[in-house]
Amino acid sequence: MIILGIDPGLTCTGWGIVSKSGSNLRHVANGQIRTNAKASMAERLVELDSALAAVILEHRPDSGAVEEVFVNVNPQSTLKLGQARGVAMLSVARAGIPVAEYPTKVIKKALVGTGGAEKQQVQHMLKILLPGVKLAGEDAADALAVAITHANMLGSHR
Amino acid sequence: MIILGIDPGLTCTGWGIVSKSGSNLRHVANGQIRTNAKASMAERLVELDSALAAVILEHRPDSGAVEEVFVNVNPQSTLKLGQARGVAMLSVARAGIPVAEYPTKVIKKALVGTGGAEKQQVQHMLKILLPGVKLAGEDAADALAVAITHANMLGSHR
Repeated sequence: MIILGIDPGLTCTGWGIVSKSGSNLRHVANGQIRTNAKASMAERLVELDSALAAVILEHRPDSGAVEEVFVNVNPQSTLKLGQARGVAMLSVARAGIPVAEYPTKVIKKALVGTGGAEKQQVQHMLKILLPGVKLAGEDAADALAVAITHANMLGSHR
Repeated sequence: MIILGIDPGLTCTGWGIVSKSGSNLRHVANGQIRTNAKASMAERLVELDSALAAVILEHRPDSGAVEEVFVNVNPQSTLKLGQARGVAMLSVARAGIPVAEYPTKVIKKALVGTGGAEKQQVQHMLKILLPGVKLAGEDAADALAVAITHANMLGSHR
């Protein structure tokens, strides 16, 4: 089973793909999609959608999961984040792939055992769970963490 | 020139189409897209995208405009609104149609002459500007107001 995790953002969206076979987890790919800050909002959303569609076409995930974004105190930032998140969820769902959502705390707890874990602890666990993984960046790391969380959750229902 | 206006929302998205020929404005169509509140977020975004794609396919607008949504004091509502808005803008832009954005105040001022106009005043002006129009609802009315604002703005640059 191929699982796609996404950490959405307008400036930078992280994505990560893991494959799961029984209890075996394997890293497939990870990356970050940056949109052109000088382009219009609509153009940036098209960039994000096209880049995610290319990732989906290449890796053909069976299931997807998206991190519940941090709800900023600044409403304009929350709106922008929502726009990117909506497009990310649509890109996956439009391809006929089910999309799960996990709050950040659940992801941290799944990886490190505590909902209050630091980013470094999460990245440390990623390197143990996915030996040899090279992380494209912080957002890609977060996306892989979402994918692993989803892989665990799927496993526990089977 | 065919102009599509959109008033995005997760529960209900209004859309309105006007055609502009010289200084002549004509109503073409308006409607509202409601998504299934019992479906998952991803499924609702796919519903919205599909319905907007059908409107675009039928009416083939040359230009689109989206109302800048009211930024709620509740961050979770703002996030949901952002998700619907992102999908709406993507649906239009993916079809190769440019998308403009107008704040609510600018739309009210364009129609009624004051940024603080009431909804009833806007709907009253709509009926004068688009004789015989039947409004599918409040969100469709807001969408037509966006389309007319955009038609005026396009006109003033030519």
